[in-house]
Amino acid sequence: MTGSIATLDSRSLVEALKLVNLVIETHYIPILAVAVARFGSKSRLVATNLDQELTIQLRAESTAEFEVSIDPKKAITALGNSTGQVTASIDADGTHITTGQVIINGPLDAALSDYPSLKMGEPFHHFEIDQRELYDALQAVRFAISTEETRYYLNGVFLTAVDGQMALVATDGFRMSRHLLGRTYNGPDIIIPSDTVRTLMHLLRRDTGTSLSALISVKDTVHHKTYAVTFSGTGWALKSRCIDGTFPNWRTLLNKTIGDIGNQPAVTAKLTQAQVSRLPKQTPSYPVIIDPDARIMRTHTGHDNVEMRLKGTGNPFCVDAQQLRQLIGAVGDVEFTGCAPDAAFIVQTKNPSTIVVQMPMKMPNGFVLLGQNNAPDNGG
Amino acid sequence: MTGSIATLDSRSLVEALKLVNLVIETHYIPILAVAVARFGSKSRLVATNLDQELTIQLRAESTAEFEVSIDPKKAITALGNSTGQVTASIDADGTHITTGQVIINGPLDAALSDYPSLKMGEPFHHFEIDQRELYDALQAVRFAISTEETRYYLNGVFLTAVDGQMALVATDGFRMSRHLLGRTYNGPDIIIPSDTVRTLMHLLRRDTGTSLSALISVKDTVHHKTYAVTFSGTGWALKSRCIDGTFPNWRTLLNKTIGDIGNQPAVTAKLTQAQVSRLPKQTPSYPVIIDPDARIMRTHTGHDNVEMRLKGTGNPFCVDAQQLRQLIGAVGDVEFTGCAPDAAFIVQTKNPSTIVVQMPMKMPNGFVLLGQNNAPDNGG
Repeated sequence: MTGSIATLDSRSLVEALKLVNLVIETHYIPILAVAVARFGSKSRLVATNLDQELTIQLRAESTAEFEVSIDPKKAITALGNSTGQVTASIDADGTHITTGQVIINGPLDAALSDYPSLKMGEPFHHFEIDQRELYDALQAVRFAISTEETRYYLNGVFLTAVDGQMALVATDGFRMSRHLLGRTYNGPDIIIPSDTVRTLMHLLRRDTGTSLSALISVKDTVHHKTYAVTFSGTGWALKSRCIDGTFPNWRTLLNKTIGDIGNQPAVTAKLTQAQVSRLPKQTPSYPVIIDPDARIMRTHTGHDNVEMRLKGTGNPFCVDAQQLRQLIGAVGDVEFTGCAPDAAFIVQTKNPSTIVVQMPMKMPNGFVLLGQNNAPDNGG
Repeated sequence: MTGSIATLDSRSLVEALKLVNLVIETHYIPILAVAVARFGSKSRLVATNLDQELTIQLRAESTAEFEVSIDPKKAITALGNSTGQVTASIDADGTHITTGQVIINGPLDAALSDYPSLKMGEPFHHFEIDQRELYDALQAVRFAISTEETRYYLNGVFLTAVDGQMALVATDGFRMSRHLLGRTYNGPDIIIPSDTVRTLMHLLRRDTGTSLSALISVKDTVHHKTYAVTFSGTGWALKSRCIDGTFPNWRTLLNKTIGDIGNQPAVTAKLTQAQVSRLPKQTPSYPVIIDPDARIMRTHTGHDNVEMRLKGTGNPFCVDAQQLRQLIGAVGDVEFTGCAPDAAFIVQTKNPSTIVVQMPMKMPNGFVLLGQNNAPDNGG
């Protein structure tokens, strides 16, 4: 080991460090706060937080098989916008990452061979998918992922089949988003954790035509199956545990909501990105009052209230402002349709493959529909 | 009042709101959380936090003299990137800021005539200064302002004269920066609060050739004088209290440090912006070990240590990393000169008008000068 040297491009090392930094958490176990660069016939940078494991290929010339631990944040800062070659080396003093401007000296980690690796189980189901298609699908549902930890089975995106068609679903109990992908799926139902979705969206290419390989693997116990998934792109592989739980019966909710509304919704309202961007950004969040028959939406938040024209029909209802901002941020302009102001709404988006169920909020106490006569004329 | 309407350009209103928002703080007294737009013969937007008061001129066509309170954050978001005209109006329902896209409805504030105004005292000394010159001077010293509240008289920039020449000074007890301006000053010594410096730097134009007017006013009591200052630029005026306290004897410290070092400094070290940018950004801060005779600087922060070549002479000393980053961020590349590793250093900057005194840190326990042989060759 000692005396081993590897040479690689400093800019590509920094790019790889930025990617693996996505899965590294501040951790009281020192080994989990670093990434491991493995040099040799297949040079690569690996990092894990025990739920995800990300491997980035490195193009390096190496004199031997050896490994070096790296604190990604420190190394990204130290290497900065360096260009040219960087060498990684190991000697009796420790490890060294060296450029013309800076050296990063690390200790000899005897424990590095124990760097944890995710156990994935047996290969079970494989599929290929266009990276852009998967990116758009995740984007259309991830805003609805629950951040509440007690119902841990809602902290991810549900991959399932709807009449044999691949679908993604997420819900937090207040809203639910379902996106259909234009492809068949006959694999198992799995829940991909929210953090893995976040990492994956950083890795996926947003131009079309690049394929992603997904391999679902399984550990079978007497009682139930535990899944894991490996996503492999060009030069990277992301392994992740799946959430071990039962996703709720989302189909019943969606179908009942659609059935209740029928073909003649009692309430409809169109909301645009431009409108929602004008709503006050304040915490805690607050109800936005949408009054379609008065052709108005307005806030009811204290000193100043914001009021805008909108198109729609029916009695007033309320939606949480932050949820509205997240919804519109994910899917763009929307149309709400509902059977009543206090029942679940179906939200139609520009993409017919995406459908959202949104629960209304309770109307705030003391609410009075003021100021209708002050509505601007060109908004409706 | 009721029925009054003013018309103005929406983009210039948003720009004015962004400026007054600089002095508005989240406040439990509602009236201090808003700005006041006064329309009439001299339309203007005013905001205060009781220490600063900022007035921005508005170009408006108004049917009468009236005033409207505005929550700047909400109005900036609601107006967004609106173009075209906006009207401000007042009627029996309240106040209204109206564009083609949105209305902001506010209450009728009976208390608006009580909106607080800073009492400035009697005019005492007036001077004009180029805005860019003042900007550069504030930039050169503000990094050294103390944020510690007990020694409140250090929470600002000291305006004084050195042999009749205008000078700015700031210190927090660990470092001190003094900048000489190329002009005479025969006004009083005043301490301009840190928050006022921040607002002022947002307002000052950074291209040369625009003049700023400064008026120092005074309230005389039996015991002592209390100063305030009004800065007036094109279209704006910033009033501020001055800090009522005695700035420490900075001249003695500076002269003693220069005298101790003499013409033959025992320790010298050159540090560049590029080098300091590579130091780990971590909190709490940590000592950077600068070892001029070994031609090396390095960190001593745990798992990975960063090491760089530098030019200099003398025994090793330590500087706090965050202070080093702030220093270099304010004044660019520097040269440290000192009489000993544990005594105050004089820091020379590229601008001969700026001089900094920097105290070293204690050398960390267990420090060993490792890795000197690994220094890259082209840094020294």
